Amino acid sequence: MDELSLVFGALADPTRRTIVERLARGNATVTELAELFAISQQAVSKHLKVLEHAQLISRTRSAQSRPCVLEAERLDAAVGWVAENKQVWADRHDRLEQHLARLRGER
Amino acid sequence: MDELSLVFGALADPTRRTIVERLARGNATVTELAELFAISQQAVSKHLKVLEHAQLISRTRSAQSRPCVLEAERLDAAVGWVAENKQVWADRHDRLEQHLARLRGER
Repeated sequence: MDELSLVFGALADPTRRTIVERLARGNATVTELAELFAISQQAVSKHLKVLEHAQLISRTRSAQSRPCVLEAERLDAAVGWVAENKQVWADRHDRLEQHLARLRGER
Repeated sequence: MDELSLVFGALADPTRRTIVERLARGNATVTELAELFAISQQAVSKHLKVLEHAQLISRTRSAQSRPCVLEAERLDAAVGWVAENKQVWADRHDRLEQHLARLRGER
């Protein structure tokens, strides 16, 4: 699977997005995340695996608590793709508007 | 399913992203999209259904060819969510940098 599909797929779940939102504010352990969502550590671990596979998060190997770290650069590709296509669409609509304005002016 | 999950889920596929990229440049019919990707109209229709369900595209009911139209405003929520979390993360790192700089200055 390509990078963007992995990232978008990982973000297509409300719990995983809330984990990303939490980790944007600071690193957290699985225990902390499980407490936050009042779900089992097993359920959290499942979501973390999807986020790790998309390389949106990483886990510190050194510390015993192995806190989760957001790999925020991975968000750039996603935001870049969406923003670029929004821009292409907006430019086209601007050109259309200009074209219509010219037609009106020519009347 | 919530709006953002539908949008991210719809974008988690390379063919669907290419359809969005194509429609950002202008409306297209199912036939045109099928020709572009050299896949069956049935396969295209399946992808269009996912995009329609996420309200990322709509289909003109009036014209017989029923061209597909990108609903680009729906991309705003996705780009907004990603950009916001990137910003939260960046602000935190800026504060951390400032804090470390202060500590270095105090030495």
